[in-house]
Amino acid sequence: MQMLDIIIKKRNGYELTKEEISFLVKGYTNGSIPDYQMSAFLMAVYFQGMNDKEATTLALEMEHSGDVLDLSRIKGFKVDKHSTGGVGDKTSIVLAPLVASLGIEFAKMSGRGLGHTGGTLDKLESIPGYNIVLSPEEFINQVLNIHIALIGQSGNLTPADKKMYALRDVTGTVDSIPLIAASIMSKKLAAGADGICLDVKVGSGAFMKTIEDARHLANLMVQIGTSCGRKMTAILTNMDEPLGLAVGNALEVKEAIDTLNGKGPSDLRELCLFIGSYLVMDAGLADNVDSARKLLEEQIENKMALRKLAELVDAQGGNSDYIYHPELFEEAEEIIPVTSATCGYIKRIDSYSVGRASMLLGAGREKLTDEIDPIVGIVLNKKVGDYVNAGDVLGYVHTNGKNTEEAIKMFSDSFEYSTEKLDVKLILDVIR
Amino acid sequence: MQMLDIIIKKRNGYELTKEEISFLVKGYTNGSIPDYQMSAFLMAVYFQGMNDKEATTLALEMEHSGDVLDLSRIKGFKVDKHSTGGVGDKTSIVLAPLVASLGIEFAKMSGRGLGHTGGTLDKLESIPGYNIVLSPEEFINQVLNIHIALIGQSGNLTPADKKMYALRDVTGTVDSIPLIAASIMSKKLAAGADGICLDVKVGSGAFMKTIEDARHLANLMVQIGTSCGRKMTAILTNMDEPLGLAVGNALEVKEAIDTLNGKGPSDLRELCLFIGSYLVMDAGLADNVDSARKLLEEQIENKMALRKLAELVDAQGGNSDYIYHPELFEEAEEIIPVTSATCGYIKRIDSYSVGRASMLLGAGREKLTDEIDPIVGIVLNKKVGDYVNAGDVLGYVHTNGKNTEEAIKMFSDSFEYSTEKLDVKLILDVIR
Repeated sequence: MQMLDIIIKKRNGYELTKEEISFLVKGYTNGSIPDYQMSAFLMAVYFQGMNDKEATTLALEMEHSGDVLDLSRIKGFKVDKHSTGGVGDKTSIVLAPLVASLGIEFAKMSGRGLGHTGGTLDKLESIPGYNIVLSPEEFINQVLNIHIALIGQSGNLTPADKKMYALRDVTGTVDSIPLIAASIMSKKLAAGADGICLDVKVGSGAFMKTIEDARHLANLMVQIGTSCGRKMTAILTNMDEPLGLAVGNALEVKEAIDTLNGKGPSDLRELCLFIGSYLVMDAGLADNVDSARKLLEEQIENKMALRKLAELVDAQGGNSDYIYHPELFEEAEEIIPVTSATCGYIKRIDSYSVGRASMLLGAGREKLTDEIDPIVGIVLNKKVGDYVNAGDVLGYVHTNGKNTEEAIKMFSDSFEYSTEKLDVKLILDVIR
Repeated sequence: MQMLDIIIKKRNGYELTKEEISFLVKGYTNGSIPDYQMSAFLMAVYFQGMNDKEATTLALEMEHSGDVLDLSRIKGFKVDKHSTGGVGDKTSIVLAPLVASLGIEFAKMSGRGLGHTGGTLDKLESIPGYNIVLSPEEFINQVLNIHIALIGQSGNLTPADKKMYALRDVTGTVDSIPLIAASIMSKKLAAGADGICLDVKVGSGAFMKTIEDARHLANLMVQIGTSCGRKMTAILTNMDEPLGLAVGNALEVKEAIDTLNGKGPSDLRELCLFIGSYLVMDAGLADNVDSARKLLEEQIENKMALRKLAELVDAQGGNSDYIYHPELFEEAEEIIPVTSATCGYIKRIDSYSVGRASMLLGAGREKLTDEIDPIVGIVLNKKVGDYVNAGDVLGYVHTNGKNTEEAIKMFSDSFEYSTEKLDVKLILDVIR
């Protein structure tokens, strides 16, 4: 079998066999297929696509390109969650302890952020002492003890995906639905959960610009997971504004704590309860989403979910005082209100620009080697649908002096206004 | 400027600026743009194409990526010729001395063959002693002395094209009309001729499968050359059978000699006279193709063209006795007649298969490092339009024992039959 023939076959629009996909994943992982052939292949896939069968095969081959986590020692129902990347998305930090507080096993590996704000790992590391590195053994033991672990990727999981993703990033081949689906699902499958909930963001700032593309991606991922015996849920959510109010690492952790205290922004609370309900149902603790939601609401009310977060932080070496006393988090040198120059209903807050503005302040990385400032960022004071007068505060820029002017301008420019009030719909569809 | 942005711009179907094309050619030549980005870009061009302006810019940038031959010391009209690659194509060996015998300067650099039969250089090297390596200085001096030189590429011409072509070859990005046009024209422009004739082959065995694609390619190349002040002619020729009868290095040289003796196959003679007429007109020696053709026919008749070939061989260190006495060429150990199993009119002789069969015998290279056997090959006994009975000889396999059975089968299978006689048209169109 020759890689050149596989490239030309895909370029000409034909379906690849399991053997061909296996050959190219193995060959690329072991280095016998060079980057320049793989990038030509990926660009051919960008144009010609892959059918669901090919994408499933690709996901499975990438899943098995390295170690696969064996969670069989954990007897309970194990759940996992993935988001395709949102600005202000601190869902995992709320959802994981919320669900785990009911005794459901939440064994999650997260990533770091690149391009705008930090990832879940960066956010967690803003809690002093929090350690994201556990061995697979320690990871499993912690879940056995307290039903929850939130760490960075452990072991040699999906090396094919790591290598291929890095290549896609520099060759203009990221925006391909089958490649995105196979990449996400290879990691989720290798991480071993029984129930997986996917949050697919839709909007101009997201990978998926249209609801049709988002639905296609979600259906494909659900199908890949289901074909491997996993219980799958995909939720399509609007990204026409950041999720919640806070964008920036410690700021987002504080908002997550607020939410677990029953005081967080309504969209964040809603999304966590919504996703959580499906996981609770799949774990067999409720017959329908309504009763599942009631269970979760109770865990917020009685603070069990907040205590679970503190337990998690303790277990991973962090200082859990910060969870019960979020006022301990250091504040930025300056907190600058940014006001509106005009009046009207807010139509849209460009998430990408808010994320970039926050990155400029130091909350995110441009390059993998950049260091993150955990305490800077932006806190919105208005959301889509709100009416503002000229001079009203749109939000607060928390800065330690880095790129402040540029960030303020970018944040301010991210608002779009309308003369009429718009309805905002956070959750657009559920695919199971 | 970032290569990633250029890849995405082309991927999304936008026209690239001169600055962007210059950036990518320079960056790829000096190694600052890696192969994996260039191959993704080339695949994007395969799908999105390039308009004529972009292709012209690409050709000019590649032309100037290295040395450019300065032929200004040669005061006469300098001509060059290029073929997109045909099986049995020994046109240059007939055409160059034929035209040069009229005092027109034929300064040509040729290539080696890969994939099926040898290139012009391989064919010339079957003449004992013939040296294809001259310095640019020696090359120009020889043209000044005898109006002709036929050598391998000299100096550091079009390094961008060399590097890009090698990459296209292994990434499934060869079949792109703008890339083919820019590659050919960059080399032709850098080689410095005033008048250039391009032979674009059409047919299932050629790069251009359809007359429309061939016309597109020809028009584009003519336009690129004309915009640089060169006199351009492109001829579209049928490749539904090999050109002439002989396929194989010494066998083809002998057929070229026959043709210069007025005895060669009619299609080869016709193509050389046809192309030659345009070059003679462009050089100002005739007002129209008819009178140009008469001049050339005379040079065959009076043996001046044959003497020019002998002069060329002498000048480049070869033994010109072989030109006057082609019976001196060694013969293969066995000459095996291959007969037809059926009867009918020959509809098509698959050039590619005949070329591959000849390569199997040793006449061509699979890899660049393969050695060529100069005396083996195939000589056709029948051409398209001929009627054959079962048992009639289709052609002769000249073999030294390498892959003989396989080559015979492949050659035999290359014939397609019909119950009706088909008209064969060699020259399909002329574009000036």
